Amino acid sequence: MEVSAPPLIEMAEMLEENGSVAAAPEAPVDPEPPSFTMPPAVEDEEGELPADFERLWKAAHDNPHDFTSWTDLLQYCEQESHITASRRALVAFLARYPLCYGYWKKFADLERRAGNNTKAEEVCEQGLQAIPLSVDLWIHYINLLLGTLDMNLPESPKRIRSVFEDAVAAAGLDFHSDRLWDLYVEWEKEQGNMRNAAAVLDRVLKVPTQLYNTHYDKFKEHLNGHEPKDILLPEEYEELRTLCRQSQKAERAEQAQEEEKERPPGEEEPATPEGTDTIKRPYFHVKSLDRLQLRAWHSYLDWEISEVRILFERCLIACALYEEFWIRYIQYLEPQSVEEARAIFKRACEIHLTNKPNIHMQWATFEERHGDLTEARRVLEAMEKNLPGLAMVRLRRAALERRAGQLDQSEALLQEAVADSKEKPMLHAFYSIKLARLLLKLGRNPSRARRVLQEALEISPDNDKLYLNLLELEVSGDPWASSEAVQECVTRALAAPLAPHTKILFSQRGLQFAEDYSNSIQSVLSVYEEHQKLLKELGGTKRGAENG
Amino acid sequence: MEVSAPPLIEMAEMLEENGSVAAAPEAPVDPEPPSFTMPPAVEDEEGELPADFERLWKAAHDNPHDFTSWTDLLQYCEQESHITASRRALVAFLARYPLCYGYWKKFADLERRAGNNTKAEEVCEQGLQAIPLSVDLWIHYINLLLGTLDMNLPESPKRIRSVFEDAVAAAGLDFHSDRLWDLYVEWEKEQGNMRNAAAVLDRVLKVPTQLYNTHYDKFKEHLNGHEPKDILLPEEYEELRTLCRQSQKAERAEQAQEEEKERPPGEEEPATPEGTDTIKRPYFHVKSLDRLQLRAWHSYLDWEISEVRILFERCLIACALYEEFWIRYIQYLEPQSVEEARAIFKRACEIHLTNKPNIHMQWATFEERHGDLTEARRVLEAMEKNLPGLAMVRLRRAALERRAGQLDQSEALLQEAVADSKEKPMLHAFYSIKLARLLLKLGRNPSRARRVLQEALEISPDNDKLYLNLLELEVSGDPWASSEAVQECVTRALAAPLAPHTKILFSQRGLQFAEDYSNSIQSVLSVYEEHQKLLKELGGTKRGAENG
Repeated sequence: MEVSAPPLIEMAEMLEENGSVAAAPEAPVDPEPPSFTMPPAVEDEEGELPADFERLWKAAHDNPHDFTSWTDLLQYCEQESHITASRRALVAFLARYPLCYGYWKKFADLERRAGNNTKAEEVCEQGLQAIPLSVDLWIHYINLLLGTLDMNLPESPKRIRSVFEDAVAAAGLDFHSDRLWDLYVEWEKEQGNMRNAAAVLDRVLKVPTQLYNTHYDKFKEHLNGHEPKDILLPEEYEELRTLCRQSQKAERAEQAQEEEKERPPGEEEPATPEGTDTIKRPYFHVKSLDRLQLRAWHSYLDWEISEVRILFERCLIACALYEEFWIRYIQYLEPQSVEEARAIFKRACEIHLTNKPNIHMQWATFEERHGDLTEARRVLEAMEKNLPGLAMVRLRRAALERRAGQLDQSEALLQEAVADSKEKPMLHAFYSIKLARLLLKLGRNPSRARRVLQEALEISPDNDKLYLNLLELEVSGDPWASSEAVQECVTRALAAPLAPHTKILFSQRGLQFAEDYSNSIQSVLSVYEEHQKLLKELGGTKRGAENG
Repeated sequence: MEVSAPPLIEMAEMLEENGSVAAAPEAPVDPEPPSFTMPPAVEDEEGELPADFERLWKAAHDNPHDFTSWTDLLQYCEQESHITASRRALVAFLARYPLCYGYWKKFADLERRAGNNTKAEEVCEQGLQAIPLSVDLWIHYINLLLGTLDMNLPESPKRIRSVFEDAVAAAGLDFHSDRLWDLYVEWEKEQGNMRNAAAVLDRVLKVPTQLYNTHYDKFKEHLNGHEPKDILLPEEYEELRTLCRQSQKAERAEQAQEEEKERPPGEEEPATPEGTDTIKRPYFHVKSLDRLQLRAWHSYLDWEISEVRILFERCLIACALYEEFWIRYIQYLEPQSVEEARAIFKRACEIHLTNKPNIHMQWATFEERHGDLTEARRVLEAMEKNLPGLAMVRLRRAALERRAGQLDQSEALLQEAVADSKEKPMLHAFYSIKLARLLLKLGRNPSRARRVLQEALEISPDNDKLYLNLLELEVSGDPWASSEAVQECVTRALAAPLAPHTKILFSQRGLQFAEDYSNSIQSVLSVYEEHQKLLKELGGTKRGAENG
């Protein structure tokens, strides 16, 4: 089935529409594509897609975090065997859920059935970039190559071997990588390369996999079934012979010197070396260790340290949607390398946890802490674009600018938030208070702060927090100059639709201010009388006031 | 054989004499002794020791880093079966080489043969503090207890079990800990505690030991050979039944909801859980993981991270005498915990590498970097006391004081070094130059600097570096005021027993100074003539000058 391609730009837009990470439209086909970009363009049919597809597609996009709506879409495409629809659905789905290796396999099978073997390979390669620890996907890829490459061509076995090498480098240290290693050994045997098979078996024995003992038995069987010369490379064979001769010589020399076998100090029995390890002396001795053993200890430490990362990577397949594991991985990496920690933040936030504000905030904090304000800004802005309306994010953006000394920027962000939230009075009052505080405390501009609060009161005349902030502003000024403004604020609050106990509170504050600062006993008395009147009016008629 | 005790103070002194870490004499028997203190006092004979002992003892102490002299001493004591001598030798030896677990075993056997079972136990406990990863020593200790405790007493099995628990906590994660686990299981079986045996087998299956499969087979055998009720605790049995019921219920509920078994997204086959792990879903899925599995991932990560430390500890038994591994361990630990890194420096420098200056210097740098100047000073002073005369260490001490703003202290340290090195002219000149530079550049006191160099020249009149530094000092002053001093220095150098080319160099420098700064053409000409005279005199008679 030959089909024509949909414009690349359309696919890119489709991905952008999903809010996923898309390749820039200018550079749609990158020779070394960054991880998790869309699969390469496929030849496809033009034209309309079935109405059911459009309905399911829309459902998935309207609510992209509902996994079931995606699987419904994918299932529909599969049942209908509609290749254009399937491709479109898989591309969109895998950009969002790249760890679902089963769908990469399905995608590759789809292309293979359609006769697009090269596309099928590319799909596997893309999938393996997203989930390099997937032994399943590696095996699927290799089986694809084994089934489609022309093995009469001399480059085909070379290609297969190179993919096997990529596979064991990426996933061969995994505890569950046995099937991959087995496949590699068996394939080498089928090719008649007994030496290569022996070398692969030798390598798997350095990895503590689940079926370790099986490999050991196979290796013994392999060694017993063939001549050493046939299963070792000529240089290995020579090296082994030289090593044997050298070690015999060294042993004789040492024996002549000491007339005793090496053993742990104080032990009567010579020590039996543990296994066939390069590490022959696991106990303490003052005698120096040879260069080989020192190197072996270093590699053993390297290997053990790398195991921790592999486990984190395995964990973050199963637990990719849990912030706590990503954070733990980052905390583990940060003291070793800020760059690597940053890469994990990027992977977590841009692929798996696009909608979790917490880890994005932590990423921004991380960048600010390491002095990259531009990146901290970018992270918060992207977060806000993706999930608009989170006050926490907007406040963090304003705080970041404030700490960076960009007071104007900080103010502008709050101004914008105030302007954009006029339809949501609670939020509008909240931002107005934050803005007013910034203007008052840092901008030292009480008149602008006052205006912000007064404008907010026009939208929310029943918001006691706005009155309280206004009162605090008036009280904080020079007491002789501001007494009129204080009483004006109190009067305004008393006239507003506030709860009786709030009104009494305002009246008390006004009275207190007059007592503390007023120059005229007359005005104190007049405020006092007003207060008493209010107490009588509200104290006894709580119910009435509430009804009013 | 009942014997009386040597005074504790004597043993402490003996240890101090060795330059080893000794417990303070005031507190010789600590209920929780710090690591690597001497073994507790033993009942012993008074009186003289054989002359051969004294000879070997002296040989070992004269050259304490010659391991053979120590083993000769220990071998002698063993052959002679002289208990006082053996004890003294073992105490001194083990303070220096605490990782030689074989000698801890010998020491315990010695006490046991002498009927001092409690002392034998104490020796084992001390040894295990020094080398807690030694499976051999744990087994030796447990066998000692099994052979000496009265098993009719109800507290004896409790004691044994508690030591087994300490042993598996300290060494049970080691790859080679199988014998210890086996002994524990067998002992519980002998006690008739099939439940405990099952619980221990269950625990060893969480550790990837060398003989993992053997344990697995034994566990299966054990489970098949007994009723679940007999090998599980009543509450475990109940818990298991409850869990079974709950999971059946949950499964039914889920099946009702989805009518399908959980599987990786996109895979047709239900996933087979890997082994009997708590981690049932190693692949990605959007469905949330239960609390148990999340906890299991955290413990798995904890375990893997702890494995790195265990490997470092194992490595630092075999490679205890190699600075590079200690440094690597410290570099690994420091980002995680400065305190733990410090503890490793302490262990490395105070026990195993007492005579390696490099790691001590690094320790001092570490402390200075972390702001603990007192500790940095202490480390360097201890190092200097232990290995006197290392110029590198003295210079570092002076530099530390200088950086700490203690210029007086810095000067005093160099003054002392100058005073103490009068018998070694090269070293004396070296320190004098360092001191003079400090006085000139930081103390801004050229006259004191000049005096230091002049005094040094009295001891080393043939040291060209001293003249060069003196000349530099004179040249660095105000050129009009110092011309006389410059020419005087040149004249002195020319009269000294220096090589001809050095003399020519000085003469050239004097001429250059005169040309650059002299006010009188007469004096320039006179210096020039002197220089020509010298060139003629020395240029042709190199051999003569050398002989003279």
